[in-house]
Amino acid sequence: MTVLYHHPMSSGSRAIRLALGELGVEPNLALENIWEGREEFLRLNPAGSLPVLVEDDQQPVVGATVIGEYLDETHGVMKPDRRLTPEGTMARAEMRRLVDWALTKLEDEVTRYLVQERVTKRQMPASAGGGAPDSSALRFARGNLKYHIQYLGYLASTRKWMAGDHMTFADLAIAGALSVLDYMGEVEWSENEPLKDWYARMKSRPSFRPLLAERLRGLPPVSHYVDLDF
Amino acid sequence: MTVLYHHPMSSGSRAIRLALGELGVEPNLALENIWEGREEFLRLNPAGSLPVLVEDDQQPVVGATVIGEYLDETHGVMKPDRRLTPEGTMARAEMRRLVDWALTKLEDEVTRYLVQERVTKRQMPASAGGGAPDSSALRFARGNLKYHIQYLGYLASTRKWMAGDHMTFADLAIAGALSVLDYMGEVEWSENEPLKDWYARMKSRPSFRPLLAERLRGLPPVSHYVDLDF
Repeated sequence: MTVLYHHPMSSGSRAIRLALGELGVEPNLALENIWEGREEFLRLNPAGSLPVLVEDDQQPVVGATVIGEYLDETHGVMKPDRRLTPEGTMARAEMRRLVDWALTKLEDEVTRYLVQERVTKRQMPASAGGGAPDSSALRFARGNLKYHIQYLGYLASTRKWMAGDHMTFADLAIAGALSVLDYMGEVEWSENEPLKDWYARMKSRPSFRPLLAERLRGLPPVSHYVDLDF
Repeated sequence: MTVLYHHPMSSGSRAIRLALGELGVEPNLALENIWEGREEFLRLNPAGSLPVLVEDDQQPVVGATVIGEYLDETHGVMKPDRRLTPEGTMARAEMRRLVDWALTKLEDEVTRYLVQERVTKRQMPASAGGGAPDSSALRFARGNLKYHIQYLGYLASTRKWMAGDHMTFADLAIAGALSVLDYMGEVEWSENEPLKDWYARMKSRPSFRPLLAERLRGLPPVSHYVDLDF
């Protein structure tokens, strides 16, 4: 049994759900609101972060990048036709650079602010910091997002897939992160045609379906979120 | 030829210098002040972050975690007696979790604030945000550091090395990160004896010598920084 502790607005959680889907592994999903600081969860992961994967009775595997490597070593090597990690040391380094871009840099400069202000603060009691969004944080994150869209669009316009000729975990990490932003209507797809085309390809993969079907209570997605032709 | 773009106050740069030392690779060090946003450097790494490794005429390898995997795949596999990555998938997942703890979590919650306020702002012109340290940022980071020391001390007290029975890249990443903080006198070693003992072992390794010999202009280290018996 594979259990994934996740949250729909966690980019890393989405990246791993996509990877599990591509590898044909069906996880049991356990929704975790990390701001609640649940003790049982902190025993699994003292960092208190998502995602966390637990397979059978093994120790927890913590963090999207770490889980990505773990899935490749356990499931990927068994399924060469579905493998999400390229052959070749330099190609793997490029894939890992872009996974880090999506799950650390984009997260730090954009996603964490928009999710905090627009989603988490709605769900938290005022005593824990909940309340109305801070407009300067939104402005800061949206300004940064333009630069990220430009860079990712540049990659999409010069390569078949983000890290080269094959779809890799980098595509899943970037698509997972952008889908969090897209749910909230934060991505101006019309600004970047090559990125839009690449995202349309990602979105039409069967591994994406469960993500697109999911809804946050009290915050429906923008209307084009589920459209494969957007 | 191996070139490492680094900065003495970058935890990830220190982690990679230690790894190169352990693997017997002598890099050419290129000091990079990332706040200058040098164009030639941004062409190597559009993220503008450190460290970046360039071997011979190959493409740059970007980021400490990515370089760690790269060094293992290229140099580590050739030197099984010096290898910094454990055998076994679960052991590797635990190592990677702790590398991420040192280079992302500790960095985000502690090191980036202390380095920014105490080092970078001294070297930046006032027009770029230089000036006196912000005491609330220092207080916030120092408060967080206590919790990190406690957790790392707990690991040191229950294991021979941070990720288990063997020294791995996790030890180098944590030691590299703590050495940045120790240079500035931010670590209260007396608060945690097991962590101090582990750090004394790390500090006495030959790979540590070049780090201990280095000085920042205008900011000498605290007196115990170089002592092997501190």
